[in-house]
Amino acid sequence: MKLKDWGEENFIAFLQSQFEPPSQAVGIGDDCAVLAKGRGFQLITTDALVEDIHFTDAVTPENLGFKTVAVNVSDIAAKGGRPEHAFLTLALPAALDVQWLKRFMQGFKLACERYNISLLGGDTVGSKQSIFINLTLLGSAKKVKLRSSAKIGDVIAVSGFLGDSLAGLMLMQQNIGSKFTPLVEAHTTPDVYPEQGQWLASQSSVHAMMDVSDGLDSDLRKLLKASGCGARINADCFPTSNALQKACKLLDWNLMEIAATGGEDYVLLCTVDSDDFPKVAKGFERRFASPLHPIGVIEEKGLKYLSNGKPMPLSVLPFSHF
Amino acid sequence: MKLKDWGEENFIAFLQSQFEPPSQAVGIGDDCAVLAKGRGFQLITTDALVEDIHFTDAVTPENLGFKTVAVNVSDIAAKGGRPEHAFLTLALPAALDVQWLKRFMQGFKLACERYNISLLGGDTVGSKQSIFINLTLLGSAKKVKLRSSAKIGDVIAVSGFLGDSLAGLMLMQQNIGSKFTPLVEAHTTPDVYPEQGQWLASQSSVHAMMDVSDGLDSDLRKLLKASGCGARINADCFPTSNALQKACKLLDWNLMEIAATGGEDYVLLCTVDSDDFPKVAKGFERRFASPLHPIGVIEEKGLKYLSNGKPMPLSVLPFSHF
Repeated sequence: MKLKDWGEENFIAFLQSQFEPPSQAVGIGDDCAVLAKGRGFQLITTDALVEDIHFTDAVTPENLGFKTVAVNVSDIAAKGGRPEHAFLTLALPAALDVQWLKRFMQGFKLACERYNISLLGGDTVGSKQSIFINLTLLGSAKKVKLRSSAKIGDVIAVSGFLGDSLAGLMLMQQNIGSKFTPLVEAHTTPDVYPEQGQWLASQSSVHAMMDVSDGLDSDLRKLLKASGCGARINADCFPTSNALQKACKLLDWNLMEIAATGGEDYVLLCTVDSDDFPKVAKGFERRFASPLHPIGVIEEKGLKYLSNGKPMPLSVLPFSHF
Repeated sequence: MKLKDWGEENFIAFLQSQFEPPSQAVGIGDDCAVLAKGRGFQLITTDALVEDIHFTDAVTPENLGFKTVAVNVSDIAAKGGRPEHAFLTLALPAALDVQWLKRFMQGFKLACERYNISLLGGDTVGSKQSIFINLTLLGSAKKVKLRSSAKIGDVIAVSGFLGDSLAGLMLMQQNIGSKFTPLVEAHTTPDVYPEQGQWLASQSSVHAMMDVSDGLDSDLRKLLKASGCGARINADCFPTSNALQKACKLLDWNLMEIAATGGEDYVLLCTVDSDDFPKVAKGFERRFASPLHPIGVIEEKGLKYLSNGKPMPLSVLPFSHF
């Protein structure tokens, strides 16, 4: 069997069956590994970016360097942590221009400064053709929220706009990105939200949390599987930017499908005790001047999308790693 | 300028100038990053293996999986630590056979069990052509020895045979590996020495330590540069295996050059206070039933190799990553 037919989920399930985490540790299958450390937790995450899979030469080296850091910060944010130490692996062709590398490191450094991260090590090796980038990021947290702790009746909420990044990518691919700069920037230099993650993790009414990196539908399914429950989603509540709404009208794109399936938005997805949701949402908005958007509720099983009270089918396939 | 002309050392120096480690941390430029943690230290290392650069399909997936773990364990050993938690990134072509991946994970698991490591996370992504492997390994240490603390007058010692791994690789490339199994195994499933590293780190007379991964000459130069000193090496003292001596005679290879420049032996290289060396060497041999081999002394500057009391030039170029 080929890897593309087996798929990432089967591989992860295989790993989980083969490698049991030690006690006091959360291992494979969440955004980060979580280790008990003193009175808090150490968080460890790792993410790879591969040329012609995750990026092409349409992306500037500076933006790529920035994004390498940001995607990992988002994983730390998703568990409620603050990022601390980074370890960068680069596999690079011998013929690569040194300027490319210096520009990459410039964007990388910008993100390290923004999120207060020290680069402490890594590995630099050769590659025959493609550029491979891997970052391991360590962080710490006082309180941690996992994917696996959603409860039936919880309100499902997201912390920001959905779909901008995918739209930005599609616009770049069609060479009309310059007309929609905010969408392109959402894709090339995504914002990530460690402070929102820390705040949400500090709330006892927030039960489960993760970031939206593969797309809401795909990531929500992971949260539901880890928590052993289902959900009903009101697609009419998807928070979408004015820029995305405009682009969808102009280009006849399906707004809700882009919001439901677009990856790399890096907003936080969380489930909150329904009685306390109004209080949490108010506190979030006061703290970040930005709303926490309720989009559905946790149910016993299944996953239903509704629009105008009617079932809404999703036709766009979720992102697959192979 | 192309990357191959700039080189890894210049890139690392560039990174060191751009990214300062925080206080109480050792960053870029040693085998591991070292962070203060409680009464001891946390060690973090990361190593990449790229298809057609570090391995070809001549290596079995099981051996590759094993080696992925071993090379990182050696970095932890080189600072005096014990390995604990691993994070594995794999970038794999969609057409890869699932059996390859399962066999790779089998060798990976064998090494994790041997060195008591939990796999706690990672990332699995697609790749257009080559297989790319990255492992980040966390460990802990009570005492740590750095590359940068060698002192003038120290005895330079290595903990085991030099050159076996390079010889094994050359034999495999010439398709005559089956006649020299121990050398081939030194290359395909290298032993690494965390217990020796921990013991050496516990000795106050041991000043500096690293592992021999790029080759004695190349690695010694790094230690000397980090410590700001030089060395005189007696090549007649290089410890070499009977198997390597036999292969060199048969194939007319230069034994001392292979010992001095062959990479991937993963023995430990350390410098020891000369007054205490006999005591340390005796203790090491009693503990591990294997000698600690003195090969030279730390001097103020330069690096001289002697054989029969005469200067010995090295013609084989040291390993370069690009």
